[in-house]
Amino acid sequence: MIKTDILIIGAGPTGLFTVFEAGLLKLKTHLIDALPQPGGQCSEIYPKKPIYDIPGFPEILAGQLVDNLMEQIKPFNPGFTLGERAETIEKLEDDTFLVTTNKGTQHNAPVVAIAGGLGSFEPRKPPIPNITDFEDKGVAYIIRDPEVYRDKRVVIAGGGDSALDWTIFLADVASEVTLVHRRNEFRGALDSVERVAELSKLGKVNLITEAEVKELKGDDHVTAVGIKHKTKGDIHLDTDYFIPLFGLSPKLGPIGNWGLEIEKNAIKVDNSYDYQTNIPGIYAIGDVNTYKGKLKLILSGFHEAAIMCQSAYQRIFPDKKYVMKYTTVGGVEGFDGTKKEAKKEVVKAII
Amino acid sequence: MIKTDILIIGAGPTGLFTVFEAGLLKLKTHLIDALPQPGGQCSEIYPKKPIYDIPGFPEILAGQLVDNLMEQIKPFNPGFTLGERAETIEKLEDDTFLVTTNKGTQHNAPVVAIAGGLGSFEPRKPPIPNITDFEDKGVAYIIRDPEVYRDKRVVIAGGGDSALDWTIFLADVASEVTLVHRRNEFRGALDSVERVAELSKLGKVNLITEAEVKELKGDDHVTAVGIKHKTKGDIHLDTDYFIPLFGLSPKLGPIGNWGLEIEKNAIKVDNSYDYQTNIPGIYAIGDVNTYKGKLKLILSGFHEAAIMCQSAYQRIFPDKKYVMKYTTVGGVEGFDGTKKEAKKEVVKAII
Repeated sequence: MIKTDILIIGAGPTGLFTVFEAGLLKLKTHLIDALPQPGGQCSEIYPKKPIYDIPGFPEILAGQLVDNLMEQIKPFNPGFTLGERAETIEKLEDDTFLVTTNKGTQHNAPVVAIAGGLGSFEPRKPPIPNITDFEDKGVAYIIRDPEVYRDKRVVIAGGGDSALDWTIFLADVASEVTLVHRRNEFRGALDSVERVAELSKLGKVNLITEAEVKELKGDDHVTAVGIKHKTKGDIHLDTDYFIPLFGLSPKLGPIGNWGLEIEKNAIKVDNSYDYQTNIPGIYAIGDVNTYKGKLKLILSGFHEAAIMCQSAYQRIFPDKKYVMKYTTVGGVEGFDGTKKEAKKEVVKAII
Repeated sequence: MIKTDILIIGAGPTGLFTVFEAGLLKLKTHLIDALPQPGGQCSEIYPKKPIYDIPGFPEILAGQLVDNLMEQIKPFNPGFTLGERAETIEKLEDDTFLVTTNKGTQHNAPVVAIAGGLGSFEPRKPPIPNITDFEDKGVAYIIRDPEVYRDKRVVIAGGGDSALDWTIFLADVASEVTLVHRRNEFRGALDSVERVAELSKLGKVNLITEAEVKELKGDDHVTAVGIKHKTKGDIHLDTDYFIPLFGLSPKLGPIGNWGLEIEKNAIKVDNSYDYQTNIPGIYAIGDVNTYKGKLKLILSGFHEAAIMCQSAYQRIFPDKKYVMKYTTVGGVEGFDGTKKEAKKEVVKAII
């Protein structure tokens, strides 16, 4: 069982900065994240994307921001449970919380800070009635191992970069690649759009636009798809795989069942004081929370983390009075024995 | 008359970042600051001091943070009234505000954002009953031009760096320098303390410790000070100047008389929504405001600025509905015609 002072669910920028603010108060932290690395969306979805609205950075790549935060929190040596999803929460008799992941790892802490961002990202599924019956039986929403499709017939659906890129890639792997897109226009990098057009002309890709896959056929496995074309009507197409690539959509996930007050897929908190949820001891900070006037900005998550840690301190040490010390005055004392501080003045008697 | 959308009082980090957040909403801004340059305390008092708790910066010098913020807000081309203090505010018939500085410069805006930090820094005065009578008549709290003291007799009071440094400096300028300090120990850089001790031994500085200046004598100008020594009793000392250097103390200043609700030298705001004061249209953000759980951190000022600008937008355009665009998606469009944006996807028809 992992024990800590503040258990942070979500290792995006807000979760990471919570480690720093907690550390200044000498509180230990541990982070759980479903992704295999820290940084949340910044690392997983857009590490190379520039962000312009982090105060003090006219421009910073998302991945660089995460690297900087990891460096900033290093002195406080947080624990990580990565690649596991916080699944259940239980309040114990001693008023602490027990959080268990989907892989059974148990965590215990007097304070839980949910910094889950927009939630975990799940694939958007097309509205085909029996699609779930064929999941892992010819239907895939994410391509994990392209070799699975070697010398097979593949139907891809979608009009974005992901659909275009995999169409191009699988053209050399699969025996037959069909790209089905609802519209005549693609929303993707110019290069990719042109390359798909070229492969289509060369007969290496079968391009069907203004059409949608509406039906899946097969018994134990997909054997064909039914396509509805805008002008040509119904098309039957034999295939071994159907891969709809319609992007990812954020989902709150199991946290949605923890008894927290939810509004518009976000957790309601008390923004007039400490970003605490309706369950005392559980806080929600960053994009995962909602309140009147909420802005889903990374900089707001930073502020919420700082405020939240003060309240957490009071919960953990109800009898201690905490007097905030500025880091410019008191420096940063790491749990690893390191100390950063501004040059001190010297007090000395001269007579 | 200077006209703008949001008039920002105070050009410290919070005031500067407000320009950015307002700019994203296409609102123009103008800043007033009593100091001669932007950056507030960061530039004036500790430009070379490292700050450790700005999210994403494991360490940054205060002056560098200001430089970065100036670079970040450059596209929004804010106006500055520097070296002038916002003195009075008046609500006009059209529901806008007229703010006039101590030098008579007039500013007009529908929204005022007070980002005044801890206020303006004023010298701490020693408790000598008639000291104000001698201000500019032999009493100075700040040394602006050391040449004033050439070949004159000077009494300095204080035990910090400022008192030590000016004692050393004036030893070569004045005809006679006396340093009076209440205690036997000095709180200053080791070098300076040793240098003063040395000058005292050489007879170039007259050092009187465990003593305080209690009395000022003279008619039109200081002619002598009365000193109370811990063991030796009263000392009469002829002098031309008395310079008490007891540091600076923050004062809210004229803003304290604007009819705003004040608590502990700070402005009360509604933190449950938009950091607005008791006067609609006047907001207070950063260290100058107070609310339950307030942390006087730069990072909190950044968040408050972002929230406040959304509310200001609604006040300025009550009929428009603002839909927030992420800078990662929409980029940053400067008022100067510049545009920063992430590499865009391309939409193109291919058939």
